Amino acid sequence: MNTIGTLLRLTLFGSSHGPGVGCVLDGVPSGLYITEDDIQRDLDLRRPAASIGTPRVEADRVELLAGIQDDFTTGAPIVIFIANHDTDSSKYIKFRTVPRPGHADLTALNRYGDTVDLRGGGQFSGRMTAPIVAAGAIAKTMLASIGVQVAAYTQRLGCLVDEKERYLKDIRHASRENPIRAADPELALDMINEIMAMKEEGDSVGGVIRCLAVGLPMGVGEPYFDSLEGELAKMLFSIPGVKGVEFGSGFRSAEMRGSEHNDQFIIEDGEVRTITNNAGGILGGLSNSMPIDLRVAIKPTASISREQRSVDLERMEDTTIKVDGRHDPCIVPRAVIVVEAATALVLADMCLRGDFIAREHR
Amino acid sequence: MNTIGTLLRLTLFGSSHGPGVGCVLDGVPSGLYITEDDIQRDLDLRRPAASIGTPRVEADRVELLAGIQDDFTTGAPIVIFIANHDTDSSKYIKFRTVPRPGHADLTALNRYGDTVDLRGGGQFSGRMTAPIVAAGAIAKTMLASIGVQVAAYTQRLGCLVDEKERYLKDIRHASRENPIRAADPELALDMINEIMAMKEEGDSVGGVIRCLAVGLPMGVGEPYFDSLEGELAKMLFSIPGVKGVEFGSGFRSAEMRGSEHNDQFIIEDGEVRTITNNAGGILGGLSNSMPIDLRVAIKPTASISREQRSVDLERMEDTTIKVDGRHDPCIVPRAVIVVEAATALVLADMCLRGDFIAREHR
Amino acid sequence: MNTIGTLLRLTLFGSSHGPGVGCVLDGVPSGLYITEDDIQRDLDLRRPAASIGTPRVEADRVELLAGIQDDFTTGAPIVIFIANHDTDSSKYIKFRTVPRPGHADLTALNRYGDTVDLRGGGQFSGRMTAPIVAAGAIAKTMLASIGVQVAAYTQRLGCLVDEKERYLKDIRHASRENPIRAADPELALDMINEIMAMKEEGDSVGGVIRCLAVGLPMGVGEPYFDSLEGELAKMLFSIPGVKGVEFGSGFRSAEMRGSEHNDQFIIEDGEVRTITNNAGGILGGLSNSMPIDLRVAIKPTASISREQRSVDLERMEDTTIKVDGRHDPCIVPRAVIVVEAATALVLADMCLRGDFIAREHR
Amino acid sequence: MNTIGTLLRLTLFGSSHGPGVGCVLDGVPSGLYITEDDIQRDLDLRRPAASIGTPRVEADRVELLAGIQDDFTTGAPIVIFIANHDTDSSKYIKFRTVPRPGHADLTALNRYGDTVDLRGGGQFSGRMTAPIVAAGAIAKTMLASIGVQVAAYTQRLGCLVDEKERYLKDIRHASRENPIRAADPELALDMINEIMAMKEEGDSVGGVIRCLAVGLPMGVGEPYFDSLEGELAKMLFSIPGVKGVEFGSGFRSAEMRGSEHNDQFIIEDGEVRTITNNAGGILGGLSNSMPIDLRVAIKPTASISREQRSVDLERMEDTTIKVDGRHDPCIVPRAVIVVEAATALVLADMCLRGDFIAREHR
Repeated sequence: MNTIGTLLRLTLFGSSHGPGVGCVLDGVPSGLYITEDDIQRDLDLRRPAASIGTPRVEADRVELLAGIQDDFTTGAPIVIFIANHDTDSSKYIKFRTVPRPGHADLTALNRYGDTVDLRGGGQFSGRMTAPIVAAGAIAKTMLASIGVQVAAYTQRLGCLVDEKERYLKDIRHASRENPIRAADPELALDMINEIMAMKEEGDSVGGVIRCLAVGLPMGVGEPYFDSLEGELAKMLFSIPGVKGVEFGSGFRSAEMRGSEHNDQFIIEDGEVRTITNNAGGILGGLSNSMPIDLRVAIKPTASISREQRSVDLERMEDTTIKVDGRHDPCIVPRAVIVVEAATALVLADMCLRGDFIAREHR
Repeated sequence: MNTIGTLLRLTLFGSSHGPGVGCVLDGVPSGLYITEDDIQRDLDLRRPAASIGTPRVEADRVELLAGIQDDFTTGAPIVIFIANHDTDSSKYIKFRTVPRPGHADLTALNRYGDTVDLRGGGQFSGRMTAPIVAAGAIAKTMLASIGVQVAAYTQRLGCLVDEKERYLKDIRHASRENPIRAADPELALDMINEIMAMKEEGDSVGGVIRCLAVGLPMGVGEPYFDSLEGELAKMLFSIPGVKGVEFGSGFRSAEMRGSEHNDQFIIEDGEVRTITNNAGGILGGLSNSMPIDLRVAIKPTASISREQRSVDLERMEDTTIKVDGRHDPCIVPRAVIVVEAATALVLADMCLRGDFIAREHR
Repeated sequence: MNTIGTLLRLTLFGSSHGPGVGCVLDGVPSGLYITEDDIQRDLDLRRPAASIGTPRVEADRVELLAGIQDDFTTGAPIVIFIANHDTDSSKYIKFRTVPRPGHADLTALNRYGDTVDLRGGGQFSGRMTAPIVAAGAIAKTMLASIGVQVAAYTQRLGCLVDEKERYLKDIRHASRENPIRAADPELALDMINEIMAMKEEGDSVGGVIRCLAVGLPMGVGEPYFDSLEGELAKMLFSIPGVKGVEFGSGFRSAEMRGSEHNDQFIIEDGEVRTITNNAGGILGGLSNSMPIDLRVAIKPTASISREQRSVDLERMEDTTIKVDGRHDPCIVPRAVIVVEAATALVLADMCLRGDFIAREHR
Repeated sequence: MNTIGTLLRLTLFGSSHGPGVGCVLDGVPSGLYITEDDIQRDLDLRRPAASIGTPRVEADRVELLAGIQDDFTTGAPIVIFIANHDTDSSKYIKFRTVPRPGHADLTALNRYGDTVDLRGGGQFSGRMTAPIVAAGAIAKTMLASIGVQVAAYTQRLGCLVDEKERYLKDIRHASRENPIRAADPELALDMINEIMAMKEEGDSVGGVIRCLAVGLPMGVGEPYFDSLEGELAKMLFSIPGVKGVEFGSGFRSAEMRGSEHNDQFIIEDGEVRTITNNAGGILGGLSNSMPIDLRVAIKPTASISREQRSVDLERMEDTTIKVDGRHDPCIVPRAVIVVEAATALVLADMCLRGDFIAREHR
């Protein structure tokens, strides 16, 4: 369903072409200072860049309907609403009969029937990630209060890969400097060119987003089913287009030997650290005080302007479809802030669950 | 925590060296025929093979403490208990001071303090997967009642990869014929040799398990946070040693173009099908009636007999550790049935949630 | 927290003097016909009657922000917003120092600290029941689709008691004919007089609301903790002012003998029925096809215009307080529709959980 | 379903005539000292007294299968098992055709069909409360660690009522001195006589249990749906036979005026207190530091040896039934410790949720 989290609970609502999208964020402790600007700043990072994104540009102004008064949280659920403006639903009617490949049209119709809202992807739209970003800004403020920082960047776009080891402080800055959200400005230029090429060809491309979180104390997470990996993965897989999630060594671990993979312990500055971080900062589902390190694979945008095979559901016969619309040739850059937000939301919930963030004003 | 699922709810308990391990499986409809043998058969697939596994061999006899009477489910929670016998806890005392690299010793101690049970990994032990396998056998019976089948196999072990496309019916049979749970008998021999080599070197190796599910009707899954991917990933990441989860094209999708990645629709035998299955059988979080196709990366066993760097937590100084114990040089073969069970448990829950399996006797 | 329900999930938000109050209702099947008027009609029943209620009169216009398109549910979460207009927050400042007896001021301040919103009771306000009523209207539509009807009435107001046995069809009509929501028009007049007397005396009075639900098939409910009684009670106790909940014979059962209390079975019109209904329609937590019969005790309104003892929290010394404000001398009449809605919401969720209402369009 | 609680999660299992009954209690912090004797002591209070109870006497020996090692909690889920011994299932066969009035036979059969376990009431049996009592003993230990005490007593049995105001310290002692669990030894004798009379007449009688909890800090509870009242009521209504739950003034509040009902504040020993406690220690769903005060109505035992009307479900015709069996003429005395346990379990969960009990060893 549309709610996630145990002590920090996010409920999403809205659809791409309805009045708007939004969320309820319940469980934020009272007395937290948070301005509309803090939220807006993150939301702005999700907007498509002029050159490389979709021509649909929404102002995406945050409206706070509840839970924050005079820039302080009251302890009541926070409600964020983001109105839709630039909607053009006319072209979605035909997808009810001829579903778009790579989209949820077919399954949504099957499950919800004729009254389902498919306009702009309805509740399956990437637009549903806007309130996640807004809520994530609040989660980051919660985390910042105990010294935790989260940052993501575009590590791969098609065949262009950023192979360098990166530290959070570099990512954080660099990735806001270019519309690709890349950590390396030169690679960013190559990536922009790749996207422009895709646009010209009426095609799209995928990528990989890497997210780091530092400052998490040891022991955050719950054993077994509510492990950090499990909770993070569940959240991350709800972002439309995500096809894979891995932590630390991830799929590379399959090729490794134990002697190479085990992160050996050392004392450094009076603290227990590991020499490597193949664990991605997590042992037994609990944080081990090394950076949380995760990677998310994003598929190429499903909407492409090329002709594709599809079926006519009324006549039950083969046909073709051409999806015109306004789309991003690559959603990876816009998804970077979404991955950051999703990660922050889970970490904040887990910190509440483990008493690492105080729930109470006391 | 140790409970997962919405309408089919699994609660795990026990520890590696306590009286035993087990689980409560709540929400199984009444009137389902299931014998102790059905459960035992799956559990036996999790036992280490003589040549390639750990010398610790548990009989792992299923005991049904509740919920099944005269081989039929009563509708009450099913309780499965598996006693521990072959435990040798003596050597675990030192890990309280010198934590093993790659294990949860350090984080568990930090979080639970002195009274934590670290013997054999305590509640972080791979042994906790035994009740998951037992519960999974029941979930498979539920799924079979609506024509859904689940099967997994070892697709990669270190550098040995099974590149062939595979169909469920082949996997199911083949993977039970060899101790590696490989779909290809010749590759299985190579993999056995690889494991033997690791054993000799006192080292270990990782791998990849692929799991398929066929027969799932269209529309199983819940939108957004309770998507099939999200629910499956959460469950799969709770299996100790899992570092990555991907669906369909997974991480390869990052390198693909939309025109290549989109699964185009066709009519086949009067049904809507897709030509390719990069989606892994899931669109918008809902099953699209193509096979569910997922892959799980497993890290090399953390317990290796080589000397490794660690720290003395009392003196807070560097030291080394050699983990003798009885271990599998590769847990992938034993994890195959666990991945199968975990997948089945989630699918059965999602089928209940979507009314695809009747909850009621009526 | 502010979310309740398993498959039909209600999330409340807002506060008495913020921009508005509202809710997200997730899990409503798609394809249900429901108009804004249907919702508005119930909401209007919650408005204070001119003569007997608070002078604060809110238009309470329903705004549908998501989940309903062209009067049909889409399957996405439904969002209802009700703007606040007639707010006067000035007088609430002093309650931060001198808490009102019978209100949540003291506990809310203690828990949420200085930034808590106490204006009009904040998130503890009776105004939070408006979105419950709105959501309840949708739940009733769901229930009506399987022939279930819910109706409540004022059974007691202070010392005035309606002793007659009542049937749903009578209640439903009668209770909408008078502002007291009484089933008996003459008793209603006495009750109005009682409220007028209270108003004059600057005092308030409590009462009892009885709620019936008929048409529920046998077997609705979940065993043990999610029994019909348990789920209904949890929901009902969240209505501000509720001090007791009982089913069927309720507290009277304590004085009864088994031979008198047991509802003996008979065959009537080919169906199994019980002669009496001390069980209140529930056996073992499951509906037994007799009417659900529950009663809710409501305390007298805490806001009275008489001087009361209180404390100055800054100086930590005794003082007195006089609560001017605009209040109902009795909230029972307005709470009738709230009890009806709360009951309907739980029953609809339980019907979904037991497959009695289909979750899917198929 | 059979799981309740958010951070302290109880999962019940077993049935009256299967191998045994038990529970998993997840979320108990590590490092808590708790012996099998502590648990056994409470469980012994649930056993029927020789003179007034059922002839079925189970030894009810606690077995700890997981989560406690050397008398300290490890942080892993605690598993308690209580074997069944004195079972006689022969007489339950006929209830599959002719359901017993006041029991769950009919609804259970309807919902779970032929394979349901009705022996001894199956999973609807009062015997399911034994593991609740055992888990409650652990919850009490958790509460004791922050100075909270819980105690219940028989306040009413049929027409015999204990009208006196009672304090926790008196109840605690007195109610363990007599088999009725009454606070007043003389009233206890009358109550014993009443039960003996019922026994002779082949009839049964109901009663009221009152439960107090003192020492709870201010602010325990969650707003709205997870209010203290809501969470407590949900748990209490899962105890078989409970027909009503009220807090503080409860149903009496309906007859009261606000001026009389409001608990006015005073300063006492430097603390804010209320003069009366009509609120039952709860304001706005949160504890106000006055004693939690609740009352539970218990119906007369459904099993009576008199002939009653019932129906033959196969022939669908009227018939009569006489329930021989071994039963308590009044379950109130045995339910006292159950109410105490249920209350303690909820309060411990709510204290964890509000950070009043530390979740972590740190």
